[in-house]
Amino acid sequence: MARMNAFYAQSGGVTAVINASAAGVIETAREHKDRIGKVYAGRDGILGALHENLIDTSKESRKTIEALCHTPGGAFGSCRHKLKGLDESRHEYERLIEVFRAHNIGYFFYNGGGDSADTCLKVSQLSEKMGFPIQAIHVPKTVDNDLPITDTCPGFGSVAKYTAVCAREAGLDVASMYSTSTRVFVMEVMGRHAGWIAASSALAAEQKDDPPHVILLPEVPLDQQAFLERVQKTVERIGYCVVVVSEGARYPDGTVIADAGTTDAFGHKQLGGVAPIIAQMIKDQLGYKYHWSVADYLQRSARHLVSATDLEQAYAVGRKAVEYALAGKNAVMPAIVRRNTQKYSWTIEEAPLNKVANVEKKMPKKFISKDGLNITPSAREYLAPLIRGEAPPPYRNGLPQIARPKLVAVPKKLNTEFKF
Amino acid sequence: MARMNAFYAQSGGVTAVINASAAGVIETAREHKDRIGKVYAGRDGILGALHENLIDTSKESRKTIEALCHTPGGAFGSCRHKLKGLDESRHEYERLIEVFRAHNIGYFFYNGGGDSADTCLKVSQLSEKMGFPIQAIHVPKTVDNDLPITDTCPGFGSVAKYTAVCAREAGLDVASMYSTSTRVFVMEVMGRHAGWIAASSALAAEQKDDPPHVILLPEVPLDQQAFLERVQKTVERIGYCVVVVSEGARYPDGTVIADAGTTDAFGHKQLGGVAPIIAQMIKDQLGYKYHWSVADYLQRSARHLVSATDLEQAYAVGRKAVEYALAGKNAVMPAIVRRNTQKYSWTIEEAPLNKVANVEKKMPKKFISKDGLNITPSAREYLAPLIRGEAPPPYRNGLPQIARPKLVAVPKKLNTEFKF
Repeated sequence: MARMNAFYAQSGGVTAVINASAAGVIETAREHKDRIGKVYAGRDGILGALHENLIDTSKESRKTIEALCHTPGGAFGSCRHKLKGLDESRHEYERLIEVFRAHNIGYFFYNGGGDSADTCLKVSQLSEKMGFPIQAIHVPKTVDNDLPITDTCPGFGSVAKYTAVCAREAGLDVASMYSTSTRVFVMEVMGRHAGWIAASSALAAEQKDDPPHVILLPEVPLDQQAFLERVQKTVERIGYCVVVVSEGARYPDGTVIADAGTTDAFGHKQLGGVAPIIAQMIKDQLGYKYHWSVADYLQRSARHLVSATDLEQAYAVGRKAVEYALAGKNAVMPAIVRRNTQKYSWTIEEAPLNKVANVEKKMPKKFISKDGLNITPSAREYLAPLIRGEAPPPYRNGLPQIARPKLVAVPKKLNTEFKF
Repeated sequence: MARMNAFYAQSGGVTAVINASAAGVIETAREHKDRIGKVYAGRDGILGALHENLIDTSKESRKTIEALCHTPGGAFGSCRHKLKGLDESRHEYERLIEVFRAHNIGYFFYNGGGDSADTCLKVSQLSEKMGFPIQAIHVPKTVDNDLPITDTCPGFGSVAKYTAVCAREAGLDVASMYSTSTRVFVMEVMGRHAGWIAASSALAAEQKDDPPHVILLPEVPLDQQAFLERVQKTVERIGYCVVVVSEGARYPDGTVIADAGTTDAFGHKQLGGVAPIIAQMIKDQLGYKYHWSVADYLQRSARHLVSATDLEQAYAVGRKAVEYALAGKNAVMPAIVRRNTQKYSWTIEEAPLNKVANVEKKMPKKFISKDGLNITPSAREYLAPLIRGEAPPPYRNGLPQIARPKLVAVPKKLNTEFKF
């Protein structure tokens, strides 16, 4: 069997642990030099393949690859580019084949979320539909936790931990100030369509009346009256209220609150973010002094606060992806399977990619409390193990140390520029 | 000498390490039971004294007091209440004396920033001006780092570290996405009048072109043209740009940018925060896709990421304050004195409170680069040691553990309600 090279790329929004998956892929491939030649990383995801911008990861030292495990962001660059269907955009696929053939690539590892799984699925069909032999394995990644089949998505556990820790810490801040200052703190977190991240903040609450007190999920249309009443009652009872809101929280008519805020009734642009809108709503209706936060990229890049469980899973799916490739598989994704929740244990099993692509896993009803403003005990049970364990990066001079890969370009073999 | 009780209170915005100062005061007082009776904490700062809302810290276990060292926020509650002058508001001082006398309080420890130093100074004058013997010692605290005399302020080093770490981490995120997505990331940090926190983000940059690339300080009026040019050149050269902006950044006419944003030309309220305004400015003028973050309370409550140096200093000033009291001092503050920067060492010396109160230490000119958009090597030299060392809290179930003080109220001895 000829020794083929592998292509690996990162796709979509990056996470604090996606580079650990890269390390899992690269280190495992290096252990099988008899079967896999070099691992070429795509610069900026699939675009790296289309533009023949490949990075030769064999030029990176063992230490640098190890250091990827404590480096947030996407070391090789990511992109938001979804391949269209074969019929619509045949020249993209022809180009991929041209580049893969030129560089002797037989394995395709794509590290991303739902849209990326779709791209990976399309690449996996190159053998069947266009006669080019390639094995495509999807490596799951998304802070949104919205991939189906897998119990959780690498990247999510760390953001979940970040969110719960921040809700606890900022909650203590508000608790000490409310007598003369801030009564309500609104903390916005990521999650455009699914409320998993916001839901995780609930783990911060271990005792009655611990923050957060209200959680607004994209799955539950905002009942403004009920929400404001809850905020008011919380303030009246304990003096303050911490609200966690998903960026995708929406009005009953389906409008995303943050989007609605971008243009006011007079056509003037507003500045985005749902937290300030919710805070202003509370101020206008209840008169409470507020503060709000929008952590944005801070939350998904917070390598300093990852969940050790999540980090381990991120590495493991990278490793398993290569093992699947070596076993001759195509169009699959390593999925995390929960064996036991109480004494948490998990394993990895293969999921068919056509069941993963383009399916969005939202919070199930049984995870959302009846009033729609918090989560249920079964949601807590599901979420709790995912944030466990700490895995701080090495520090020097007070700062987390990061990999500084050389990113050596693979010499181009084609004379053609790719045009979309 | 009669054994007097002590009053301790927290004032102003809280920090990730102010409770370590509380632990320093309480533990040191407990070591001197022959001289100091009980430590009564004011509930919600000086208001606790005025309303006779005192917490008996002797009811807290040794373990709980120790745990304060890893608990953010203000365990006893804080407030924003500045005593007026004696002439203006004599009844407030008379009330303080009444409460102190009723509870046999002879020591007053006030843990706060510049405004609180002023309150502490006024209390220190009760002996001289109103014939009531009390020793008032100010315990420095403020994330803003704007107290004079002391080399740094407990609370600041930790926010500085948080800011530098986040700039590095989020910078890596943007660096991996810019080819198809976000080009500019704007990160807002605290600092209404002084840019120390924003300045600290520069420590994240260890190599040429490392983020952050531009820093906007309150000390430097925004030169919009020069700023936008710098952003554009940075994006053109390296593909992306990370901007850190102080909440107090201002226009040349002195208007705080965030305030200017609160009402538009048509009188419509905007939603606050300088980051979205700067981001929108960049979008409008340069067309770059942006993201922005406003960490708000998250930054100053981030106990999970404190500077070990800062934590140690916070505890030390609490301890020293009690030692000053035992030495018979009044109207002083333990100030941190830098002995050596290269091999960082520090000590504590006493500063007269009348030189501390109401003086705001801004960034000196020599710390700001000529173009006004970054800091100088001497600023880096000053800042670098302050963020060193990690001191993570204990974790359980993936969450930082916190003190849960009982906060037992001291029985009231007065029958009177205090009215302002």
